[in-house]
Amino acid sequence: MSKPKIVVLGAGYAGLMTTKKLAKQLAPEEAELVLVNKHNYHYETTWLHEVAAGTINHNQARFMISDVVNPNRVRLIYDSVVKVNKEENKVVLENSELTYDYLVIALGFVTNTFGIKGMEENAFFIQDIDGCQLIRDHIEYKFAQYKNSEEKNDDDLTILVGGGGFTGIELVGELVEKVPQLCKKYDIDRRKARIINVEAAPSILPVFEKDLVAYAKESLERRGVEFMIGTKITECTEEGFVVGDDSELVKAGTIVWTGGVTGSPVLSESGFELNRGKVTVNGDLRAPGEDNIFILGDCAWVMNEAEGRPFPPTAQAAMQHATTCAHNIAALLHNEPLQNFIFDDKGTVASLGITDGVGTVFGGTKLTGKPAATMKKVVDNRSIFLFGGVNLLLKKGKVRPF
Amino acid sequence: MSKPKIVVLGAGYAGLMTTKKLAKQLAPEEAELVLVNKHNYHYETTWLHEVAAGTINHNQARFMISDVVNPNRVRLIYDSVVKVNKEENKVVLENSELTYDYLVIALGFVTNTFGIKGMEENAFFIQDIDGCQLIRDHIEYKFAQYKNSEEKNDDDLTILVGGGGFTGIELVGELVEKVPQLCKKYDIDRRKARIINVEAAPSILPVFEKDLVAYAKESLERRGVEFMIGTKITECTEEGFVVGDDSELVKAGTIVWTGGVTGSPVLSESGFELNRGKVTVNGDLRAPGEDNIFILGDCAWVMNEAEGRPFPPTAQAAMQHATTCAHNIAALLHNEPLQNFIFDDKGTVASLGITDGVGTVFGGTKLTGKPAATMKKVVDNRSIFLFGGVNLLLKKGKVRPF
Repeated sequence: MSKPKIVVLGAGYAGLMTTKKLAKQLAPEEAELVLVNKHNYHYETTWLHEVAAGTINHNQARFMISDVVNPNRVRLIYDSVVKVNKEENKVVLENSELTYDYLVIALGFVTNTFGIKGMEENAFFIQDIDGCQLIRDHIEYKFAQYKNSEEKNDDDLTILVGGGGFTGIELVGELVEKVPQLCKKYDIDRRKARIINVEAAPSILPVFEKDLVAYAKESLERRGVEFMIGTKITECTEEGFVVGDDSELVKAGTIVWTGGVTGSPVLSESGFELNRGKVTVNGDLRAPGEDNIFILGDCAWVMNEAEGRPFPPTAQAAMQHATTCAHNIAALLHNEPLQNFIFDDKGTVASLGITDGVGTVFGGTKLTGKPAATMKKVVDNRSIFLFGGVNLLLKKGKVRPF
Repeated sequence: MSKPKIVVLGAGYAGLMTTKKLAKQLAPEEAELVLVNKHNYHYETTWLHEVAAGTINHNQARFMISDVVNPNRVRLIYDSVVKVNKEENKVVLENSELTYDYLVIALGFVTNTFGIKGMEENAFFIQDIDGCQLIRDHIEYKFAQYKNSEEKNDDDLTILVGGGGFTGIELVGELVEKVPQLCKKYDIDRRKARIINVEAAPSILPVFEKDLVAYAKESLERRGVEFMIGTKITECTEEGFVVGDDSELVKAGTIVWTGGVTGSPVLSESGFELNRGKVTVNGDLRAPGEDNIFILGDCAWVMNEAEGRPFPPTAQAAMQHATTCAHNIAALLHNEPLQNFIFDDKGTVASLGITDGVGTVFGGTKLTGKPAATMKKVVDNRSIFLFGGVNLLLKKGKVRPF
């Protein structure tokens, strides 16, 4: 009998970590390992806002998969997943097909525009490395064009960010670092360049308590961010957002939407039952009714049974999914009992630029200012260290002065 | 009686050097000095192709005028010149007016499209710092857009350079350095990005002898530049150049025109008699029929009487104009005889990227390859040194490895 074949789809936080753990826990004769990913690199999704703002180089936010996974142990396939054929235990890729005995679906998220008219066509998304390089270049190009235009339109210098959640706020936090640099580079009056954050809910950063939210808002406002909170976007045009009941048009040269995400479209293509775009998995992280398919990371809702709602879909959770998933696949191979996922919440920190931030760590300790910014870098570096050890940390770690 | 007032228009090679020499040669009680310039900085026009390609930072190619001219000795006015009113000895600026006793017009060049249809609207020009930053950003933006587009159009990666003279060839020389970097940055196959130079004349670099031209062409072709020589551009559209008798459309994402220059439009606004856009000045560099107006640099044709044609309009010549002009203004103040301009040709070197070049120096010695590239940097550094001494050389000099 041939070895069981374990196929992991996606080399994000969940998929790459699952692959690494499987390669460590299973001997080569026990199982064949395959990792499928669109690119030959992994990128740190939680750093993408920095690539988009241009405050870090895009290469810092990615590393070669073959640098952290041994290609002699794991077959690496760089291709896009079209769909999973559950009945035949088969994965359809753009350029080939693949059978599996065990499947891990960790294909991450795509941006969700909630059907807001024109958003798909006119806004940029914080979604991948290529797209975030385009945002960075677009902003800079707008500044250069402004400088060279005869009849200057100050709106060209406005950057509009839809969504006041984690990504939206961390993005404006980087933009307040970047915009003054751009103004200097292009000899433009800093006061002409606006950064506007629009959020429909009554507060930004819903994940944090009120005092931290107030701190974050005040810190960003002091450095020039304008907030439009409790403001619903009804449409996105080429020129900007249409907001509120009077359909006011807020014009901008750069429009970014960070207001929502949903699981990979491969899930619906493959016939999984979806709940707000993701699959609500069993406690052992398997898809309901499937013995050999695990779904992790941003493709999954993992229920917090104690609180009756899903755990938050974060990078931290995704990497912990990997531990449970790898354990459970090994358990299936060894006919041992499976574990249920338990989230070990190490805290959450949002950066507000290079030297500021807000967060809650160590089970409740609140941080603001430089300590929060420092902790954020510790968090970012931890992920890099877990993937690639000291060598990768030295190459990609965040050792910016603060 | 009040002191005579000397007004210099333009802080390019000719104007800035004239001002420095006058400040040195004339005591404060002898004459009032005024320098008018559009920006508060001087830029090295002969380095602009590097800014456009993105191979040097734009700040390296400029320096603050107040760093090299003493504002206590020279009144600095940052404004644009509208026209000169010769009858009233007055200069009209955008925001004020200015009288003069002696005037130096050194307002440089603007790009000449020779009336080629659509060129003004659709091509970028190598003309000033702002415009060259825009070219750099435009090229990069095209690469980022290409990477993010679903249906990729390889033409977006093509850079089309019209004109095979000095600027055009030096620009493609920088682009062959830059394009591979961009391909790496955006994960794009190098072979998809084209650099095309189009020249109507039967040869590029008409200033050099045949063997040097052949060397330059072969060196650039080997590194991926495509030449269309003896190819006339009949029109420039949004998509590219229309060339030749069959009206072939050469498509590109970036279109730059370097095919010609003409003197500042202020000359015609002020009623000077023009010859191909410039004023043919007397041997002493004064405008014909004007006792107190000198015209220098790219605004002037200075006749080489021995050869019956004008001296080439180069930065080297412009800086030598300054020496003659400053001497002659001092001579007028002191009632001494004026000198005629004599061009001291120190040679000409064109760069072909960072480590290659062609040129003729020391009255005929031909250089190619690294020696030429080295000599080019010596030439570039010399100008910086002449303006700002060792301090400026250390700040802005070219000490790139070669």
